[in-house]
Amino acid sequence: MERKVELGIIGGGIAGLSAAVYAKRSGLESVIFEGTAIGGQLLLMDSIDNYVGLGLGTKAREVLINLQSMVSGLDLEVISKTVNDVKVNKEGLSLNAEGLNYLTKGLIIASGAKFKRLGVKGEGDFIGKGVSYCAVCDGFFFKGKDVAVIGGGNNAVEEALYLSDIANKVFLIHRRDKLRALSYLQKDLFSRKNIEILFNSRVKEVKGSEAVESINIEDTNTGQNKTLPLQGVFIAIGVGPSTDIFKDLVSRDEDGFIVTDENLKTNLEQVWACGDCRKRPLRQLITAASEGAIAAISAYRHIKGRYISS
Amino acid sequence: MERKVELGIIGGGIAGLSAAVYAKRSGLESVIFEGTAIGGQLLLMDSIDNYVGLGLGTKAREVLINLQSMVSGLDLEVISKTVNDVKVNKEGLSLNAEGLNYLTKGLIIASGAKFKRLGVKGEGDFIGKGVSYCAVCDGFFFKGKDVAVIGGGNNAVEEALYLSDIANKVFLIHRRDKLRALSYLQKDLFSRKNIEILFNSRVKEVKGSEAVESINIEDTNTGQNKTLPLQGVFIAIGVGPSTDIFKDLVSRDEDGFIVTDENLKTNLEQVWACGDCRKRPLRQLITAASEGAIAAISAYRHIKGRYISS
Repeated sequence: MERKVELGIIGGGIAGLSAAVYAKRSGLESVIFEGTAIGGQLLLMDSIDNYVGLGLGTKAREVLINLQSMVSGLDLEVISKTVNDVKVNKEGLSLNAEGLNYLTKGLIIASGAKFKRLGVKGEGDFIGKGVSYCAVCDGFFFKGKDVAVIGGGNNAVEEALYLSDIANKVFLIHRRDKLRALSYLQKDLFSRKNIEILFNSRVKEVKGSEAVESINIEDTNTGQNKTLPLQGVFIAIGVGPSTDIFKDLVSRDEDGFIVTDENLKTNLEQVWACGDCRKRPLRQLITAASEGAIAAISAYRHIKGRYISS
Repeated sequence: MERKVELGIIGGGIAGLSAAVYAKRSGLESVIFEGTAIGGQLLLMDSIDNYVGLGLGTKAREVLINLQSMVSGLDLEVISKTVNDVKVNKEGLSLNAEGLNYLTKGLIIASGAKFKRLGVKGEGDFIGKGVSYCAVCDGFFFKGKDVAVIGGGNNAVEEALYLSDIANKVFLIHRRDKLRALSYLQKDLFSRKNIEILFNSRVKEVKGSEAVESINIEDTNTGQNKTLPLQGVFIAIGVGPSTDIFKDLVSRDEDGFIVTDENLKTNLEQVWACGDCRKRPLRQLITAASEGAIAAISAYRHIKGRYISS
């Protein structure tokens, strides 16, 4: 038993939802597959200052309510299942979502990205017990405690700044001799009295019993090891796209991001990609929202066989 | 006397403002030149249903207030003058804004575009109340209603096709005896049961009380007038980018839209373009906002000579 829909959208983050809004409004019949919750990375955010249209400092939870108003107000269909498999066939695409089968004429992939793991001993054992990938989500649990942030980019510095208002002491641990973060972030960072930056340092192990108690770090110049006693480790070394199940379907770059053209078409003419799963110049909420709209209109053009000018 | 700033942004619509927000947050010193009012095309809109992040049916005036909160909250500098002239010199770019001179290291052009007006009685009175210039933007509001599209080119036919999936009935009204649109578009057009084409017809007046209720059209052969009762009028007689003053500065396409790469860089390495003035796949608020962000980060990379992660 197979249900036919014109367009499948994988992912209920802001890219997938924007695609669904534009698909609906163009008259395309579409369904969104989202195995967890609507909102994507917004679920991990606190307030938003760089999304024009929203007021300065809008809370992420208000935006989630707004997204929900679009889902219900425009009657967007969200299927709370994860797509496990996509196959091309001569009628279109066959999607398997946890045992349910769908046949679609087109597919928009908006599957997002996930935080990268350090891959060191103890990391996996202490997730939720001192190891975190999101300061805004978990920082509060480390009030007055000592924590480390691992990384040297914007996200790592932002997390260190956020945590410095909550924790007793923040170590920023970076394996290189300089940070990649924006200058205004670095300036702020260096002004904080409770942040200590450890350059040329590589985390070797996360240790503890019930919860994190320390990390071992190695000086990459001297090879010497030392132990830092602390209670929290925030890993901020980037994100990897959630595109594994599409690896035999569409072209990806060396990091696994899906490659598209300007109209967000992949190497398959009936598949488009948008948001964090895509190779793109700027990974932001506003760019993801825009890409969802473009992908939907590209899908409309292909599926309805009609051109619509911009 | 010449004032030096790192970045000039021409245009205070959503693209220019998004650029200013991202420039500010990256530490770039920038000024926005906007000779009329902040908000661009938002000033002509009523409510917005396709900008994810905003709640369904958000009033354009609320969005304008939100934009203003960003301008004041982030201390963005808006210069209420129109840039008349831009010249490249060896230090950067010289901008003349109604007699004031600025020297910048980079320039973001977000000067927008204008829909051509029909210039008939009632047209201006009913903008946002039944008169529209964009089917993808506003078509959804006319679900199950009767609408007219005015024009005979590709854009007019595309809009009529788009609307025929949504509206009850679509009149395509053209003043000549044949269409200028591409043949495959015309073929599709003639196949639609709910589209009626009125050739040799000129719109004389848009009528209504609170919203559009009818249009008066004249048969250009017989001179006879008739009234068509309908709820929507889509005027599709062309759009022109506001790029005349840049014609000797940057490359434009045959219609005057500025050509850029994926990072929104023009043929000049210190000039970027975003929003409606740019040749782009989808002309929408959300895409303009996204492009402003991308242009600003591209400018940051160029002007500060620094890498920033996406």
